Amino acid sequence: MKLVKLIEFPFFEEDDGNLTVFEEGAYSIPFLIKRVFHVSSMKGSVRGNHAHIKCSQLLICSSGAIEVKCDDFFSKENYILDRPNLGLLLLPGVWANETYLKDNTNLTVICDRLYEKDDYINNYSDFKVFAQSLKGGNNWKS
Amino acid sequence: MKLVKLIEFPFFEEDDGNLTVFEEGAYSIPFLIKRVFHVSSMKGSVRGNHAHIKCSQLLICSSGAIEVKCDDFFSKENYILDRPNLGLLLLPGVWANETYLKDNTNLTVICDRLYEKDDYINNYSDFKVFAQSLKGGNNWKS
Repeated sequence: MKLVKLIEFPFFEEDDGNLTVFEEGAYSIPFLIKRVFHVSSMKGSVRGNHAHIKCSQLLICSSGAIEVKCDDFFSKENYILDRPNLGLLLLPGVWANETYLKDNTNLTVICDRLYEKDDYINNYSDFKVFAQSLKGGNNWKS
Repeated sequence: MKLVKLIEFPFFEEDDGNLTVFEEGAYSIPFLIKRVFHVSSMKGSVRGNHAHIKCSQLLICSSGAIEVKCDDFFSKENYILDRPNLGLLLLPGVWANETYLKDNTNLTVICDRLYEKDDYINNYSDFKVFAQSLKGGNNWKS
C-alpha cells in the first residue's frame, strides 16, 4: 500500500534507559512536525476509524502493543507496533483503526498539521468517494 | 526560575482511552517542533546532567513518574512529572537531571532543534561560565 510505510528508527540501548529519536526532514520523518499527541489505553480498546484529507501522521507505540488496520479502499494491510522505534507513517487517504493489544499501552502520534476538525473523514461512505478521487495518487513527500 | 515553566496541557478522558495534545505555536508549545525523542527507563535511573546552549525542550512523562532537578546556577528547583498532560519547558541555560521514580517510566521530549552534539554542556564548570554569561537573560520566546 503506497500510502503506508513502516519505518525503523534509531534505537539506543543504554545502561540507564533506552532512547529513540524522531527528527523532521530527510533524516527520518518526511514532513515538518506541527503537533504531537499521546493516547494511553487498555487492552481491547479500538480507536481511530477515520481518515485524514490533508494530515500525515507517524504512529509510534512507546510501550505495550497496537495493531493498526489500514485501508486505502483499494487494499487492506495490518501492522503490529510493539517496539518504541517502529513507526508507521500514514499519508492522507488511509482509513485506519488501532486495536490496543495490552493494558497500559501508549501511542504517540506525530503530525504535519495542527488540529483541524474538517480534516477528519468519519464516515466510510464519504471515505470511499475521497479515496477514489485520489486513485492512489498521493505519494511520499521528499 | 524564569528559564523553567510548568505547563498544563489539555487532557481528554474518553471511554476508549485518554488523549493529550501538544501543538507548536502560541496554543501550547512556544516554539517550532524539530525533534521528538522517547526515553524509557526503570526506577532509580538518573539521566540528563547536562545543559543546552540553544535547544529548548518540553519534557512530558506519559507513564510512570520522574523528578526533574533544575539548576540555572542562580537557583535550583525540583519538579515532579507524574501525569501525561503535565509538561516541563526548559529554556537553554538550565542544568537538569531526571530521576525515574517508577519502573517502566516513559519520557517524551519535544525539542526546537535537531540533534547537535555541540549544543550539549556536559561539564558543570563549563555550565557555570555559560550560565553567568546569560545572567538570567534568556526569556520565553513569543
